[in-house]
Amino acid sequence: MAKHAASFLVAGWVKHYNKQSFLSDLIAAVIVAIMLIPQSLAYAMLAGLPPEVCLYASTAPLIAYALLGTSSTLSVGPVAITSLMTSAALAEVAQQGTAGYLTGAITLATLSGIMLLGFGLLRLGFLANFLSHTVVSAFITASALIIALSQVRHVLGIEAEGDNLFELVHAIGIQSSDANLYTVLIGLATLTFLFAVRTWGVGVLQKAGLSARTAELAAKSAPVIGVIASILVTFRFELADRGVAIVGEIPTGLPMFAVPTFSLELVEILLIPAALISIIGYVESISVGRTLGARRQERVDSNRELVGLGAANLSSAFSGALPVTGGFSRSVVNFDAGAVTQGASIYTAILIALASLFLTPALYFLPKATLAATIIVAVLSLVDLSIIRKTWRYSRSDNLALLMTICATLGFGVETGVSFGVVTSLALHLYRTSRPHIAEVGLVEGTEHFRNVRRYEVKTVPEILTLRVDESLFFANASFLEDEIFMKLTSQPAIRHVILMCSAVNEVDFSALEVLEELNRRFEEQGLALHLSEVKGPVLDRLHRMAFMDRLSGGLYFTQHQAFTDICARLHSSALSEKP
Amino acid sequence: MAKHAASFLVAGWVKHYNKQSFLSDLIAAVIVAIMLIPQSLAYAMLAGLPPEVCLYASTAPLIAYALLGTSSTLSVGPVAITSLMTSAALAEVAQQGTAGYLTGAITLATLSGIMLLGFGLLRLGFLANFLSHTVVSAFITASALIIALSQVRHVLGIEAEGDNLFELVHAIGIQSSDANLYTVLIGLATLTFLFAVRTWGVGVLQKAGLSARTAELAAKSAPVIGVIASILVTFRFELADRGVAIVGEIPTGLPMFAVPTFSLELVEILLIPAALISIIGYVESISVGRTLGARRQERVDSNRELVGLGAANLSSAFSGALPVTGGFSRSVVNFDAGAVTQGASIYTAILIALASLFLTPALYFLPKATLAATIIVAVLSLVDLSIIRKTWRYSRSDNLALLMTICATLGFGVETGVSFGVVTSLALHLYRTSRPHIAEVGLVEGTEHFRNVRRYEVKTVPEILTLRVDESLFFANASFLEDEIFMKLTSQPAIRHVILMCSAVNEVDFSALEVLEELNRRFEEQGLALHLSEVKGPVLDRLHRMAFMDRLSGGLYFTQHQAFTDICARLHSSALSEKP
Repeated sequence: MAKHAASFLVAGWVKHYNKQSFLSDLIAAVIVAIMLIPQSLAYAMLAGLPPEVCLYASTAPLIAYALLGTSSTLSVGPVAITSLMTSAALAEVAQQGTAGYLTGAITLATLSGIMLLGFGLLRLGFLANFLSHTVVSAFITASALIIALSQVRHVLGIEAEGDNLFELVHAIGIQSSDANLYTVLIGLATLTFLFAVRTWGVGVLQKAGLSARTAELAAKSAPVIGVIASILVTFRFELADRGVAIVGEIPTGLPMFAVPTFSLELVEILLIPAALISIIGYVESISVGRTLGARRQERVDSNRELVGLGAANLSSAFSGALPVTGGFSRSVVNFDAGAVTQGASIYTAILIALASLFLTPALYFLPKATLAATIIVAVLSLVDLSIIRKTWRYSRSDNLALLMTICATLGFGVETGVSFGVVTSLALHLYRTSRPHIAEVGLVEGTEHFRNVRRYEVKTVPEILTLRVDESLFFANASFLEDEIFMKLTSQPAIRHVILMCSAVNEVDFSALEVLEELNRRFEEQGLALHLSEVKGPVLDRLHRMAFMDRLSGGLYFTQHQAFTDICARLHSSALSEKP
Repeated sequence: MAKHAASFLVAGWVKHYNKQSFLSDLIAAVIVAIMLIPQSLAYAMLAGLPPEVCLYASTAPLIAYALLGTSSTLSVGPVAITSLMTSAALAEVAQQGTAGYLTGAITLATLSGIMLLGFGLLRLGFLANFLSHTVVSAFITASALIIALSQVRHVLGIEAEGDNLFELVHAIGIQSSDANLYTVLIGLATLTFLFAVRTWGVGVLQKAGLSARTAELAAKSAPVIGVIASILVTFRFELADRGVAIVGEIPTGLPMFAVPTFSLELVEILLIPAALISIIGYVESISVGRTLGARRQERVDSNRELVGLGAANLSSAFSGALPVTGGFSRSVVNFDAGAVTQGASIYTAILIALASLFLTPALYFLPKATLAATIIVAVLSLVDLSIIRKTWRYSRSDNLALLMTICATLGFGVETGVSFGVVTSLALHLYRTSRPHIAEVGLVEGTEHFRNVRRYEVKTVPEILTLRVDESLFFANASFLEDEIFMKLTSQPAIRHVILMCSAVNEVDFSALEVLEELNRRFEEQGLALHLSEVKGPVLDRLHRMAFMDRLSGGLYFTQHQAFTDICARLHSSALSEKP
């Protein structure tokens, strides 16, 4: 037990650490840190928080996850979608820039940490499976569009704000005439540069002689070049005096660790937003972790991941920052840059801490338009419209859920969008599992096989109805079976024997047993017989514990063929005895 | 279309109505009405409402249901559990006896009506399946105990109130010394009489020469005898002056139909209680309807039932009354008394209306203790503790859900109890459906059959892993399959081929397809092959629409045996070619 607890606290990678792992991890850490500095500032802007907050959120949380999580290369920190959700949640609580707003962000991180940790410790990670991947993709695509649109104001130097597509487009339309020329120039230049690098960068660098991997990583550092260039331009041409919004002073220093304090009232308001942020953050993170883990035969444990992310969020709250999660782009860069263990994340955290201590004065003249451009380019890569066409071709119900989630998110904002997505997923799941697949089967002549009467030429007898139940029976679907039998009995009045072929029934829960008991009782009243065939061993063991098996109006048969021939023989002999 | 709409509005029974049906229905109506008058007064007391309100709730709603519902014998009106839930919901809104309290009850009926009607029109009746029957039984047993305890105060003539077991027992304990002797005598006499009739009544009456059915019905009218006797005793001995609480003046008249008016604020407070009342009311009603329907080969349609109950609740709201639903005892009496069509309910409604016009002055001296005694006897018949033992023997997880729901209801009251029950049901359902049954199978030598390696002596090959998937694959369980394969690959590194035997897979949704695509992609990277066998026709048709089948790293086989022998042959020939 003690050993287990220890291995839980000190991750496995620490034991086998060596110099080579250290060097690989360090190189990856430097590359990730360089990418993270502008990214953190950009997400702080997206969340409506001071820039240093997101730098803090990229230090302690990385270490917490490295010690408790299971993915060796997942990089934790503020990400675009949870930052937007944070700003949407806080819009109802306080004005951006006030102390109350920051307290709100810390409260969200605390609640999110407690929830994730609690779910992990209660081993409820499986619940995340109930968020349909289709619905999550829809939500992310729509959110990415909203995020991109919300940043247009920084590129134009205007105030156009909004929570959904219509508000944003309307506000941008009205205010676009107030755009600041210099801001627009910087924004468009950065956008053009970033899109160009994304499109042609790797090819050009490879032609220039770089290896494929180096070219890939160099292209990923394009935002850093954009940041440095725009700082220099803004400083040189004194653009801040010509209306270009800049980041300004960022307090140097390290996060002050403190136990977060907040009001119960705030907790009540932020409880549901925190739950939604946790869900989306977790689902995104585990999918990134699994994708990267698969490439290295590394198993990602969903409950351990919840614990890791919970600890990361709590440590973010203790550093006075916002909710964090495993990010896609940062983790991929970490992986591609050669990180071998969680050590890379720890070194990244140290480098970011050093940057917040010494580098922030250099970012004074960084135009907000540049940050907005990096966000736009980053999130537009999350937009995947091909899934609309794919689901349309594959399944109309998936397609409908997808389109509805996209429309809800675009039309009513991210909070409504994700709530809608969760409810849609659950409703889809409930609907699908409420009707077990049940087929009426008949004998394939000359064999002992029974097949669906709708698809095969099979032998049936009017007095016998055989239903093959293709799923486990439990409270949610058992009454569907009851209805099905009832309908068959009404439409085929000759039926005297009903055989349930249970070859695919792995479980019969207590409510389903009650349904079977009720069916059996009714059958007896009406002079019908209920037979069971091919019942699996464990199911039979359980049924034998109850009075049901003794009261069964028909028989229990090892195979369906035995059941069918036996009942046919009985029908035949009773027909003979009735004749004279 | 017009014809369909008309048949929807005018129920089928009207067309074939004749004199004999009329007579049968009328007799049943008289018997039900006699039983309903004291029952309505009792439930009004339970709900904390004036007595006439429950008489109104037993008129228009019966007619509305008769015209729109599907069960021919279901009798709609106020029932014990929804009356208790009404009083629990209104406790937070207003004091009993105030106009605000009554407005609250009407609001609950309106909201409940709208919800039920909406769910019915949207054809969402299947959602009720997700309330586990085990959990509903637990809730009803616990609620019945709380209702019985809540009525003890009327039998003792004290004020002891409370929402849960502890509060009630505590209050009764403190105040029992204040009990009024005459009230206690009346209460205990009624209780003794009713229990005696329930236990021995039918037997005694049958011995006295009555037929079984007449004896049954006569025994059911015991509460009416109790009511008449206690009115006479109270009047004769002037017990009202000696501290016995009586019903007092009931305004004579008919309900005033009016469109209910209420505040948005009230709606917000009562929305969730109304939803819970609707759920419990609907689940109870449909189970009564199905039980009675089964005895007459009558199909009860869940969506039509929702519409019928929704209309009944709306008409109750328009009459200024509380939420109603199909009651068990009243429907059974209606059925046993020989009702053949919904006409019986309409005549019952007319008789109750006549009673509210002319009979109420006669009820002036009715002691509340008598009504309390009838409630106690009625609800104690709902208590079913045997289910605790049965579920314990059958399934521990069902037993746990049951005990937890009972404890939540007894410990925290009906509202918490039912919310808890709904959440527990859903969590159980989600947990069970998140892990598809997957078995590793091998060849039964000498046959073409494949069986679970854990249960049978079968032939396997280290390079081949065959998994039989026993359920449809969709978003909630597909990643479980992924994890399972991953674990097998880690523990059995010799595996080069994975065959998914899909004989029981009826559906693969888009999210599950994505999981399969991702698996296939990874397999290719690692030099493994993914094969499919025994894929059902409709599933295959769909898969063929996507690029997945072209990219499949392994083969597609009609039978598992073909897959196994083919891959074995390939392994053998490649082993031979590697030898030299």
